[in-house]
Amino acid sequence: MNTFTFYNPTKIVFGRDAVEKTGAEASALGKKALLLYGRSSLKSSGLYGRITSQLKKQGIQYVDFPGVKSNPVLSHCKEAIALAKKEKVDFILAAGGGSVIDEAKGIAAGYYYKGDVWDLYNGKAKPTKALPILAVLTIPATGTEMNGGTVLTNEQTLLKASFMTSLVNPRVSILDPATTLSIPPDYTAYSVVDALSHLFEGYFTHSMKWAPLHEGYVEGLAKTIIQCGDKLKKDPKNYEARETFMWAATLAWNGLSTAGLAGATVPSHALEHSLSAMYDVAHGAGLSIVIPAWMKYALSKGNKQIAKFARNVLGINTGDAKADAEAGIAALKKWFKKIGSPVSFKDAGIPKEDIPKIADNALVLCGLWGLKDYTRDVIISVYNLCL
Amino acid sequence: MNTFTFYNPTKIVFGRDAVEKTGAEASALGKKALLLYGRSSLKSSGLYGRITSQLKKQGIQYVDFPGVKSNPVLSHCKEAIALAKKEKVDFILAAGGGSVIDEAKGIAAGYYYKGDVWDLYNGKAKPTKALPILAVLTIPATGTEMNGGTVLTNEQTLLKASFMTSLVNPRVSILDPATTLSIPPDYTAYSVVDALSHLFEGYFTHSMKWAPLHEGYVEGLAKTIIQCGDKLKKDPKNYEARETFMWAATLAWNGLSTAGLAGATVPSHALEHSLSAMYDVAHGAGLSIVIPAWMKYALSKGNKQIAKFARNVLGINTGDAKADAEAGIAALKKWFKKIGSPVSFKDAGIPKEDIPKIADNALVLCGLWGLKDYTRDVIISVYNLCL
Repeated sequence: MNTFTFYNPTKIVFGRDAVEKTGAEASALGKKALLLYGRSSLKSSGLYGRITSQLKKQGIQYVDFPGVKSNPVLSHCKEAIALAKKEKVDFILAAGGGSVIDEAKGIAAGYYYKGDVWDLYNGKAKPTKALPILAVLTIPATGTEMNGGTVLTNEQTLLKASFMTSLVNPRVSILDPATTLSIPPDYTAYSVVDALSHLFEGYFTHSMKWAPLHEGYVEGLAKTIIQCGDKLKKDPKNYEARETFMWAATLAWNGLSTAGLAGATVPSHALEHSLSAMYDVAHGAGLSIVIPAWMKYALSKGNKQIAKFARNVLGINTGDAKADAEAGIAALKKWFKKIGSPVSFKDAGIPKEDIPKIADNALVLCGLWGLKDYTRDVIISVYNLCL
Repeated sequence: MNTFTFYNPTKIVFGRDAVEKTGAEASALGKKALLLYGRSSLKSSGLYGRITSQLKKQGIQYVDFPGVKSNPVLSHCKEAIALAKKEKVDFILAAGGGSVIDEAKGIAAGYYYKGDVWDLYNGKAKPTKALPILAVLTIPATGTEMNGGTVLTNEQTLLKASFMTSLVNPRVSILDPATTLSIPPDYTAYSVVDALSHLFEGYFTHSMKWAPLHEGYVEGLAKTIIQCGDKLKKDPKNYEARETFMWAATLAWNGLSTAGLAGATVPSHALEHSLSAMYDVAHGAGLSIVIPAWMKYALSKGNKQIAKFARNVLGINTGDAKADAEAGIAALKKWFKKIGSPVSFKDAGIPKEDIPKIADNALVLCGLWGLKDYTRDVIISVYNLCL
């Protein structure tokens, strides 16, 4: 194993009616909040009213700031920082999916950073302090509710970049599965893909000969998430599946799946981010296109983990490792399609002629993330498997 | 699932030479430490010197307080509280196994409690504040390095009691697998049993019809720990097995295996604590006696989880659930014996004539922990299966 530091100070408040604890949790963080959210659905669902009435009851002022995009953008984050400074807020209340929480992290760290907040994303500077964040999660998928990661898109350069520090871990994340019952089928599928993808990266790419702890953790969660995906495809209102998925998605990317895992890399995410930055496809939708293609590429390079995944998670056992791996990739791709997530550029309306410029974009991120094996040629060859 | 709050703010510093980070971590907690440890082995192993030289380098004063017993006792905890108050320490540096860290938690909370610290254990009072704890773990087993639980024995009443609050979670726990290479075979076995036992309680007793997340988590860790036990039986110096076991034991009882799990109880621990309180057998050794007996009892009452464990963890599949369960219990008992942990009162030198008074002791704890089904008769019937 690698040496590691695991520090995850986010308090999770989970379960039925957890939303009703928002006011009490907020009161521990300050007297004035920036209330950050996305679209009008927060209001139409009644959640906005449930949250603000609690804030009022606790005597907490709030400054409304809606309009976070589903791939959150730099310009909106900058506007929010300016507003938070002007209003001198004590904390950020982020109500929504991963995008809202990710942007909240940029605001939280940007609030105390003197330069351009993008410096924190492109690696030019490191955050040193951050406003506290209280998150009310409505779309489980990214795991951002229990980690220190944030991803933002710079609309000018179309680069999607990230940083990670426990300074921006939400102090408290409220996970109320009932708030997720109304997620439409397509976004449910994208969320399921996203949560799975976080487990895949380390599992498929690590270099340890014996890793029963990490692999067992991933296999258990992956099997759970696949069961949830099937149940939610059948019945999007299945509460048991919603709650199980919500907690599983959090555990899939809270740092445990890769803590100490030697050699793990994140190629699928590096290759997907260009798709969602350039075409505004949902992150999960981009992932279900890239993952099977990357698996094919990795298998051709001798990857042994794909066969293990096919056997231990999908229950495939032909007696031949390569055949297991190939069947596993085909089964996973078919399953992505079945639950309603695209599996090709064609499905997502991405023109194949764009591959060179998508590769140029991805190359920048592969550089930032230290994925040296992913040269422009390699990236193009993976994208060619996405058609 | 049940509603739950998960909050685990312990920072884990893990891996080769992690001990060398003790000074840096200590310097964030204050200028004066109570240095708590157990036996002279801390000195003979050189660890004492490695820790104290770092404290000196950082300009941190320390007050030595050795002598923590392997089932830590109330009187020693009280002496430590008095010393900590007199010396006005800023934090506790607990170097040792679970006993040392457990006692450190009693000291940390007792430091700020005006009455008898035992009140916190027997439920008469709740802790409201605690000194920070920096733990350097040398025996992985109990999980106390990453949770808010503490167990202490009152030598006058021979009651072993506990409390749990995130206030006493260690701020930082240093897990350096090399420090565990010298644990003797018997204590290695007891540690493996203890770590497994934490996974068993929830898994065997929960009432959920569909719990793939929790069960997957437990099965993955249990298979890992069993592999570690086998490797360490063969070669106690196997570093890979030591490091994997160290992290697995932490993850086995850091709150995740039961967070949200409905209906989970802890009968084996309730029945074991009397053995280690009354006969000073190691906690893990007591558990390997009680667990198979409890499993037999539970199976006779219709428990379905034992068969699942036999299939999914031990790979037993006879085609009949009851036969699987029976074979699973027999296999587990045989395995406990094989790795060197006792499986009967006879093995541990506990006289069978004592069963009535052991049952009286256990009944008190079952009462404190709300295990209503465990009447005196039931407890006696389980102990009768331990002979």
